[in-house]
Amino acid sequence: MPIVKLVFSSPEAAEEAFYRAMQKRDLDLMMAVWAEDDNISCVHPGGQRLDGREAVRSSFEQILKASPAMAFRLSDATHVYDQNLAVHVLHEHIRLGDDSHFQPPVVATNIYRLTDNGWRMVMHHASSTRSNRQPASLH
Amino acid sequence: MPIVKLVFSSPEAAEEAFYRAMQKRDLDLMMAVWAEDDNISCVHPGGQRLDGREAVRSSFEQILKASPAMAFRLSDATHVYDQNLAVHVLHEHIRLGDDSHFQPPVVATNIYRLTDNGWRMVMHHASSTRSNRQPASLH
Repeated sequence: MPIVKLVFSSPEAAEEAFYRAMQKRDLDLMMAVWAEDDNISCVHPGGQRLDGREAVRSSFEQILKASPAMAFRLSDATHVYDQNLAVHVLHEHIRLGDDSHFQPPVVATNIYRLTDNGWRMVMHHASSTRSNRQPASLH
Repeated sequence: MPIVKLVFSSPEAAEEAFYRAMQKRDLDLMMAVWAEDDNISCVHPGGQRLDGREAVRSSFEQILKASPAMAFRLSDATHVYDQNLAVHVLHEHIRLGDDSHFQPPVVATNIYRLTDNGWRMVMHHASSTRSNRQPASLH
């Protein structure tokens, strides 16, 4: 199978691929979103901090295998940009399997860095909130 | 009382002041750490995302009033820098009141931006972890 190198031209493109990887349970795409060095960290809701590609890959492998189908809706995004670094803060609204309702929103801080191979994720910090607010806006 | 304008010359100086404000329950110092515009967000462990100075100030006012004395130890810091933006990921180990033990570590993503008034915090995303690991290293 040929190895296709993905190059994301913007933080938004990397972010779109991140949530697409979640929805499609595509571990290769997920790991193509993350920076290729080990200076990456990931915190899943309620979880420990995971540092480095191996720990991050292993966690997503488990999540993508174990979870029912996940549909994502994103809302309330705010951005802070510098030349080579981008911070996106947003709400993830996740619907599991055949559920008709969304889970309580997850707050995510997603950080992207411009690398030699385009924009890549370097941090995903997600935490559950207690409310059950529905998305005010989608993107 | 004269108004003293604090200018932090580095993300580290702003971060030191952030945790000093927590320990000293100094709301004025806390708010001097945050950027002066409303493009700031704060997530306390288990909490909703709070956007803007008024929401952030109000939350810290409640925390600083309601909490017992808090002693902080920080560990496992990793940094990602750009020219005007700095991301610090670290563990907060918090000891409450007269407790002899630390609470389970909190993962914090702290983001600072170089503003016209020096480095200021623009994001604090904190979430509890389930483990009770003691700090491996302190700073």
